[in-house]
Amino acid sequence: MSNELTEQLTRLFEPRSIAIIGASATKMKWGYIVPANILAGGWKGDLYPVNPHETEILERPAFKSVKDIPGEVDLAIITIPANHVEEAVMECVEKGVRTCIVISGGFSETGKEGRAAEDEFAEIARKGGMRIVGPNTMGIYSGPNKLHALMPPVRPVAGKIAFAAQSGNLGTQMLSLGKALGVGFSRFVCIGNEADLKAADYLEYFADDPATEVILLYIEGLRDARRFIEVARETSPKKPIVVLKAGKTSAGAKAAASHSAALAADETIFDGVMKQTGMIEADTTEEMLDIAKAFAAIPMPKGRRVGVLTWGGGWGVVTADALARYGLELVEFPAETLAELDSVLPPYWSRGNPVDLVGTLDLSMHFRCLEIIARCGCVDSIISLGTMGATSSFQSFVLEGPIMDEMQRERIKPKVVTSEFLAQLQKTDEAYRDEVIRLMAETGKPIIAVSFPTSGSITPMLARQSEVVIYPSPERGAKTLAALYEYQQFLERKLAGV
Amino acid sequence: MSNELTEQLTRLFEPRSIAIIGASATKMKWGYIVPANILAGGWKGDLYPVNPHETEILERPAFKSVKDIPGEVDLAIITIPANHVEEAVMECVEKGVRTCIVISGGFSETGKEGRAAEDEFAEIARKGGMRIVGPNTMGIYSGPNKLHALMPPVRPVAGKIAFAAQSGNLGTQMLSLGKALGVGFSRFVCIGNEADLKAADYLEYFADDPATEVILLYIEGLRDARRFIEVARETSPKKPIVVLKAGKTSAGAKAAASHSAALAADETIFDGVMKQTGMIEADTTEEMLDIAKAFAAIPMPKGRRVGVLTWGGGWGVVTADALARYGLELVEFPAETLAELDSVLPPYWSRGNPVDLVGTLDLSMHFRCLEIIARCGCVDSIISLGTMGATSSFQSFVLEGPIMDEMQRERIKPKVVTSEFLAQLQKTDEAYRDEVIRLMAETGKPIIAVSFPTSGSITPMLARQSEVVIYPSPERGAKTLAALYEYQQFLERKLAGV
Repeated sequence: MSNELTEQLTRLFEPRSIAIIGASATKMKWGYIVPANILAGGWKGDLYPVNPHETEILERPAFKSVKDIPGEVDLAIITIPANHVEEAVMECVEKGVRTCIVISGGFSETGKEGRAAEDEFAEIARKGGMRIVGPNTMGIYSGPNKLHALMPPVRPVAGKIAFAAQSGNLGTQMLSLGKALGVGFSRFVCIGNEADLKAADYLEYFADDPATEVILLYIEGLRDARRFIEVARETSPKKPIVVLKAGKTSAGAKAAASHSAALAADETIFDGVMKQTGMIEADTTEEMLDIAKAFAAIPMPKGRRVGVLTWGGGWGVVTADALARYGLELVEFPAETLAELDSVLPPYWSRGNPVDLVGTLDLSMHFRCLEIIARCGCVDSIISLGTMGATSSFQSFVLEGPIMDEMQRERIKPKVVTSEFLAQLQKTDEAYRDEVIRLMAETGKPIIAVSFPTSGSITPMLARQSEVVIYPSPERGAKTLAALYEYQQFLERKLAGV
Repeated sequence: MSNELTEQLTRLFEPRSIAIIGASATKMKWGYIVPANILAGGWKGDLYPVNPHETEILERPAFKSVKDIPGEVDLAIITIPANHVEEAVMECVEKGVRTCIVISGGFSETGKEGRAAEDEFAEIARKGGMRIVGPNTMGIYSGPNKLHALMPPVRPVAGKIAFAAQSGNLGTQMLSLGKALGVGFSRFVCIGNEADLKAADYLEYFADDPATEVILLYIEGLRDARRFIEVARETSPKKPIVVLKAGKTSAGAKAAASHSAALAADETIFDGVMKQTGMIEADTTEEMLDIAKAFAAIPMPKGRRVGVLTWGGGWGVVTADALARYGLELVEFPAETLAELDSVLPPYWSRGNPVDLVGTLDLSMHFRCLEIIARCGCVDSIISLGTMGATSSFQSFVLEGPIMDEMQRERIKPKVVTSEFLAQLQKTDEAYRDEVIRLMAETGKPIIAVSFPTSGSITPMLARQSEVVIYPSPERGAKTLAALYEYQQFLERKLAGV
């Protein structure tokens, strides 16, 4: 990997100083919103507003030009209209600014003229040794140093996933969803028009970035496919790369051409590239985060044999189908495992896999069954349905005003579900989560939880998916497990030199 | 259809009186929880607790036997242990009870002996002219009369979907999810072991039930496949039937056999049956509700041509791919439609489908674009991305304590996102929803909204999907639209006599 690129992108993601070119005191303008996000996000460094018509912005002195800033500038963020960008880039180069994010749109995405203008300022930057993100980008995020240089006021959780997206909306909304689920990001970049820095550059940086363990890409088309493939091939054995490739159908490719002006790769070629390089494909937007969060949180399955724990027979059947569809095996337990389970479960249990826990509220039984299955040599991974996150379901049933009112009106005072009972369930959820974490650490096997978000909300417990993962359906849990196993197989082929 | 069956199942779903056999004053017992649910749910009728060892339960006099109840009993609910069920059924028949729900498990799902016991009490009921739900069932729900004869304290929203499920957990959790989303149910039955009433019977009843417009089935295996197919064939042209068939893989079938002791149909045979009868298949548990709620809320698309509105280019590309994958067409707008859109959108808009709304907060533009597309003769249906439900996203960004605290600490007092601004967004959401409802009524075309649940919670606005539908990803919206179109094509083939 290039040391120069690493050095340059470290300036970008971990700048010591930032100039905002087009900083504004008008609160509905990006020149206000972006620096306000940066300051509110907790980044520590020197922020310099640049605006020739103001003296103070965001309680800081405003500079007429980036060239007037006394100290060094690691990163300039340009939010001014397209026709002034070239001049601003020129001034940045003169100042010796190291990296630059061009938020402004109106370039190659609008047609030939825009492309010419984009090429011009990119050439100026290239000659001056300044790297550019964008134009037409929503900005970047960096977790370790709390840098929120983004247009939407999204405040991601810091974590292990680096994410490069050829769509700002889609990218930032994934960060938001991640926040709701407690899934953390190390870095994020909205790639924009790639006048200078390209998907392959970010991928190369993430590959060696110590803050990053998993790489997530949303790709519409590649401007430098050959280099991208090379970098992916080198990176995959070190860190899993999860990719959503949009524009694979001809309708999608056409839409992509008008969106990012990117050239779409032929679908069959792309599928071949995925396989060769060991990148893991997400088929849908939901799968992007489903899969990335699992890579960031849980161990790899060493084989295809799955043990399933369920609270309800139907969910077990659906899970069995899903495992079969995604090439995983619902393992037959050997006699000694069945005997161990016999010692825990009531005599009428179904003595097979899935293990139906027969809807009891005695959760110690679940704990013991989970341990037996996790320690069984016949099992490579576990899907645990309905146990973790049960609090959420119960809350949806009972914690609502109208129901309690009705109960009062009918003069029934049931003690079935009291707040003490719910507090106990919450505690059990936490204990179960800790047990899952312990068992994953001790056995090295992934445990995937599935809980049905029946309340429509994610409980605080569920919202910490940096240590355990919880899916809203067995199908999504099984598909994710299959993606993990696909990567494991790739690693094994690499080791075997195939 | 059989008038007798309709009359019998009307007694079941709309009983005037209910006896609880095994009623209990012990609050952790089903004999307490089930009648407590019924009373709390608002059902109006005579409830008779039956328990030889008590004098009063739930503030009502307890009877020693069902035979001691003075009035008529339309429905008996049996919650006592398996070995006492036969006697209870016998007494019910002697009393002249019309229908009976056997909650108790421990019958054919446990093996040969259980099956024999089940056959015996079913035969007694058959001879006595009493119909039986179950055994091994979680009960029933009926919307019009607010009957919540269920084990879990789920309180569904009343609506147009009738749902029969061969799994109690899966079924009741769908009801719960429906409640969170504002998706309503007319009837629900947990089918259980089908000692007497079978899937086909419920289907036949729902077909003629005036409270039901859409039928949802979770099926593991059929005990009377021939009759089921006949009833489905007759019902499909009248009401859409959405089916999740579990146990289609051999692993799933094996799991199903141990769960419900049902015989699984061969996958290819079942697929053929689906096509012939016009039933619509849901491939996943999430799709069950995705598709059913659309049938219950929005018009059918008359063709495959789709217009797409988006706030972000990336989401448009993903939607284009999804439409192509599911056999729908991203229509090319004719010159006059483009001209109409030109009059509304800024000059640099991409002049194509998807219509990229270019991230403006001026929502009146969205309203006008939606109307232009909905009224275009070239369009059969619309997918509208990101507009409805925007409040939810913004709230997740800004309404959190820590962020506001940080902003205060940094002494920035941004007025970008105030509570007034959020209230305005909420209002816009509501106005947009009303506009969608109006346009669907006036044009007869379905409008599908997609909003990314970035906050992890469902806003009150989102939680009313009985009039408009909102999906958490474009892929799920497109797949649902394809299911609606599949049914439309079936209806057209029927009309054409093919």
